[in-house]
Amino acid sequence: MQLEQIQTPTLLLDPVRTLRNIDRLVQKAQLQGVTFRPHFKTHQSHEVGRWFREVGVDKITVSSPGMAEYFAADGWEDITIAFPVNIRQIEAINELASRIRLGLLVLDPVTITALGQNLTHPVTLWIKVDVGTHRTGLEPSSTSIMDQCLEVIRTFPALQFGGFLAHAGHSYRSRSKEDVQQIYDSSLRILMDLKQRYISTWPELRISLGDTPGTSMVDHFGPVDELRPGNFVFYDLMQEQIGACTADDIAVAMACPVVALHPERLQWIIYGGAIHFSKDALKLDNGQICFGRMVEPKEDSWSVENTNRLPYIISLSQEHGIVQCTPETFSLCKPGDLSLWLPVHSCLTADAMGRYVTTDGKHVDHYRIRNGELGIRN
Amino acid sequence: MQLEQIQTPTLLLDPVRTLRNIDRLVQKAQLQGVTFRPHFKTHQSHEVGRWFREVGVDKITVSSPGMAEYFAADGWEDITIAFPVNIRQIEAINELASRIRLGLLVLDPVTITALGQNLTHPVTLWIKVDVGTHRTGLEPSSTSIMDQCLEVIRTFPALQFGGFLAHAGHSYRSRSKEDVQQIYDSSLRILMDLKQRYISTWPELRISLGDTPGTSMVDHFGPVDELRPGNFVFYDLMQEQIGACTADDIAVAMACPVVALHPERLQWIIYGGAIHFSKDALKLDNGQICFGRMVEPKEDSWSVENTNRLPYIISLSQEHGIVQCTPETFSLCKPGDLSLWLPVHSCLTADAMGRYVTTDGKHVDHYRIRNGELGIRN
Repeated sequence: MQLEQIQTPTLLLDPVRTLRNIDRLVQKAQLQGVTFRPHFKTHQSHEVGRWFREVGVDKITVSSPGMAEYFAADGWEDITIAFPVNIRQIEAINELASRIRLGLLVLDPVTITALGQNLTHPVTLWIKVDVGTHRTGLEPSSTSIMDQCLEVIRTFPALQFGGFLAHAGHSYRSRSKEDVQQIYDSSLRILMDLKQRYISTWPELRISLGDTPGTSMVDHFGPVDELRPGNFVFYDLMQEQIGACTADDIAVAMACPVVALHPERLQWIIYGGAIHFSKDALKLDNGQICFGRMVEPKEDSWSVENTNRLPYIISLSQEHGIVQCTPETFSLCKPGDLSLWLPVHSCLTADAMGRYVTTDGKHVDHYRIRNGELGIRN
Repeated sequence: MQLEQIQTPTLLLDPVRTLRNIDRLVQKAQLQGVTFRPHFKTHQSHEVGRWFREVGVDKITVSSPGMAEYFAADGWEDITIAFPVNIRQIEAINELASRIRLGLLVLDPVTITALGQNLTHPVTLWIKVDVGTHRTGLEPSSTSIMDQCLEVIRTFPALQFGGFLAHAGHSYRSRSKEDVQQIYDSSLRILMDLKQRYISTWPELRISLGDTPGTSMVDHFGPVDELRPGNFVFYDLMQEQIGACTADDIAVAMACPVVALHPERLQWIIYGGAIHFSKDALKLDNGQICFGRMVEPKEDSWSVENTNRLPYIISLSQEHGIVQCTPETFSLCKPGDLSLWLPVHSCLTADAMGRYVTTDGKHVDHYRIRNGELGIRN
């Protein structure tokens, strides 16, 4: 790695680790005959997307019409926007539907009616179900609203019913394989019950689940039709804490110059703040808040061998990071040195940075940059 | 305001409130004969910068060489980079020093030596002092290190000594005028003591302070030479909680489509998440965590009249915001409506969004977008 050339906070991407992460879950889903529709909101990159395509993936998930356009422009033709339909973007949705096989998330008859009345191209609608995360989705017991939704869908020929879709985001609060398994099982059970209820009227309906802890940690996916994890492409410290990956699986690291030392507090100040890492944190076993853990550069990548003994970031302001050392680690860096950090939440760090540099020195695109050029944030 | 045209999360900027905020502090500093060097890292905008220039401001603060270049390109000729020198950017620093009057922050003799040996154009060095924030800066008692720094500065003709500079960031933990006054007084006292100690050898030395709570809430600035607040240009909910502004002073608001309703929890889901707001939160008086408060659109801006009774954002994930309503407010919005939100930390929200639209429909630049075009994040 040519770290000497890095002057400002830079997000490093290790292609070896990334490809390993991709291969592992693609094969796992393939072996079990489950459709794999990875969520591209984590990497948001044409280049990384192509690595998925090379191992046979041809269906993807994104989180906005803008991101769908970005990937459609790189040849993706089957895209689900896993975010409740924003009806204000109806024109963009219709334009996308004219070009690709487009999946959308709905949870109310009024929005479905608006889609039906305004779309001139076919789309597949998934009813979003809340399997316990309590962010969004219909309650599993809200079958009367589901009936109303399906009635409206049936009214409009451009609207096809895809099935029931859920994101078991509450698995992020798990800290063991048993917890994750239990959440996976109960989520799948909810979707299977709905499938059972509606399959006779809608024989094509499918059920779609997908979160990184579940997809990574559960051995047998059971009778799910589709899985949509996203974060696993890079993983991060949050996933390591859940147990969904090891530190060695984490495929991105921030490179940040050290700019000041504070021996009286055994702290370093790095150039790398909230605008680079974003601000998700996790609580370490020792009770401390952590915004990133140090790793050591090694040949053409980095090593996590000593990570548990290395300093970590305890605070982030706009551009500053405060790093806590011990008497043993304080002397590892001096001002002007470059330090490497595993991020707490790789999706947000990648979005904040808007680009990557691979460990072999290549620049990798991110939707955010294209977005910057257009001056639009959507 | 033409809110109907907004389709995706958009950061609205109210020029009337912004100009009022600028005028208030520019005049306050002018009346007291204090140099006003506002920190432009909050707005990061040529356009907003020009509004400062129109009321007589000609010295500014930024947080990186890249941001200094951005403003130098718009005619600013006296810029302090209020961040410890990142020696890896020595070439950019030297290039800037060839064009403008450049101020830098230092806190160790090694970095100063590197500057002296490598710069071919003159720069002004400020010694960063920690007045109690404990982020970065030399301890006020570390006069032997200061002596060493000054000795090195004297060695190199290109290095001029500006004086002692501090950021009383611990004022952000205050919740009353008395607390803020006390922090301002103790910070100023520390800098005055240092001035006293070194003035005979360095008769030109100045002392520079500046945080938004102090500059907004303290009536008499005392014998400070320079003030460098930044956030006051927009303010935000954090400053309102401190008491540095009223809700009606907050000059930016996020416009976010409502995409789903959850009557069972009295919650809305908005299209607007961590990548739009960033993730700073504050604790409300009722103990709840808040990521943004609703305001009502009004003629050519918004009204804060009912803000304390309106819904607020209790959670942000990548693109989703969860809004907590009451039985009275739940019916205010339906899917497809646009909702307006005061941000918790306007600097980070503006940086995350990378652009503004004014309440009279004009697009306003932000450094981040130019940055996007260049593909560089510094």
